[in-house]
Amino acid sequence: MIIDILTLFPEMFNGVMNKSILGRAQEKGIIEINPINIRDFSKDKHKRVDDYTYGGGSGMVLMSQPLNDALDSLTMGKNDCRVIYLSPKGNTFNQSMANSLSKENNLIFLCGHYEGIDQRIIDKWVTDEISIGDYVLTGGELPAMVIIDSISRLIPGVLNKSQSFIDESFYNGLLEYPHYTRPAVYNGQPVPEVLLSGNHKLIDEWRTRESLRITIERRPDLINQLFNREDINFKEKAKLRKLLDELLEDNKDK
Amino acid sequence: MIIDILTLFPEMFNGVMNKSILGRAQEKGIIEINPINIRDFSKDKHKRVDDYTYGGGSGMVLMSQPLNDALDSLTMGKNDCRVIYLSPKGNTFNQSMANSLSKENNLIFLCGHYEGIDQRIIDKWVTDEISIGDYVLTGGELPAMVIIDSISRLIPGVLNKSQSFIDESFYNGLLEYPHYTRPAVYNGQPVPEVLLSGNHKLIDEWRTRESLRITIERRPDLINQLFNREDINFKEKAKLRKLLDELLEDNKDK
Repeated sequence: MIIDILTLFPEMFNGVMNKSILGRAQEKGIIEINPINIRDFSKDKHKRVDDYTYGGGSGMVLMSQPLNDALDSLTMGKNDCRVIYLSPKGNTFNQSMANSLSKENNLIFLCGHYEGIDQRIIDKWVTDEISIGDYVLTGGELPAMVIIDSISRLIPGVLNKSQSFIDESFYNGLLEYPHYTRPAVYNGQPVPEVLLSGNHKLIDEWRTRESLRITIERRPDLINQLFNREDINFKEKAKLRKLLDELLEDNKDK
Repeated sequence: MIIDILTLFPEMFNGVMNKSILGRAQEKGIIEINPINIRDFSKDKHKRVDDYTYGGGSGMVLMSQPLNDALDSLTMGKNDCRVIYLSPKGNTFNQSMANSLSKENNLIFLCGHYEGIDQRIIDKWVTDEISIGDYVLTGGELPAMVIIDSISRLIPGVLNKSQSFIDESFYNGLLEYPHYTRPAVYNGQPVPEVLLSGNHKLIDEWRTRESLRITIERRPDLINQLFNREDINFKEKAKLRKLLDELLEDNKDK
């Protein structure tokens, strides 16, 4: 997968994108990440890339010319390419969008700054306008890094077996159960006894119950989705519903 | 505001946190950002910080000892300090959490990796468990950067007047209207005529209508919240409702 990033701050990406899992994926040649300076495409003699917004207002807007020329050059000769603009008014990013993007060969990320970019660039080029959440950020650089991190993990060969991602939150639709590691007692705080029992049936049950408990407490919206899923079979749903009823009964008693 | 970040990858923060608005806020002495290596606190002779998860499973878990000692040392002598753990099972970050955090003097961010951290550290230390969205990431570093960026912007003195943040998405509860800048026609694409009219009443109306239109299309959930807000007065709500009715009528015709 080739990932091009159009940004005013290409050096922001260096320290982040060559670390850990993303660094190894690039070394293995599975992903190529190219931060590119929008300013390099400016035809203005002062390399200007922004101008005032039409209709008045305090912020500056990235101009059409440098972005248009950059996109022309990056998409040349490519048949399939998604152009992603990071913006607070985009669709909210989630794991299923990560899945869909991870199957592409070419992605271009377009990072805005100031008040944003000229709408005509969005109308002409952008295939996906994405927001990573309901909060205001300085630019599109951090959101681009977040999205690149989450999609890279899904490309075959990037994670090794020990980084297995099957158990994690949002994969199975529930928040993850708590983890503990040695020692069994630290500063007077013990690990839950069941985890030391070696009884895998009991451990699995404890983990499912804890996942359900945390999800009910923090994200009841996820519980409703759970019973509509087709990848969970009838018997498992019955088991989940039984655990759920017990937990709700417990909560009522408190 | 002093921001300490406990991480296994302190160097990830350097290229990002000294750029743009965050860089200037640090130069002005408004914010101090300290990435700290968790490994420096390990008492293990090989500086190990992780171990297998109790009860079985493939991932590794960050151990109590280094984290506990690091938090002991960072909180020493501080009366008010929020400890934020970045985790997919946390509460979903939003602009009102950004507001609340921006008023603190001391924040400690705790970045997990692998399968997470020993639950006993969360139970003993963590005041806020936060997720930036419903997607799986490699570690807590990018989410920490995202949260630090969004709260820094809200600290008085960090943004100058021309970076005014009043108009932006999520401040007024609607997604932002489109922006355009010179030239008035680019590659055959014209700017909407009203923006060139100089008539500010018409421009304001167009912008409000566009904001509403985009919000209806992309985030209908935000529309419902709008009419419950106390900072929008009766007359303005009436105007918004009228525009909303017109837009819904238009959509029906299509």
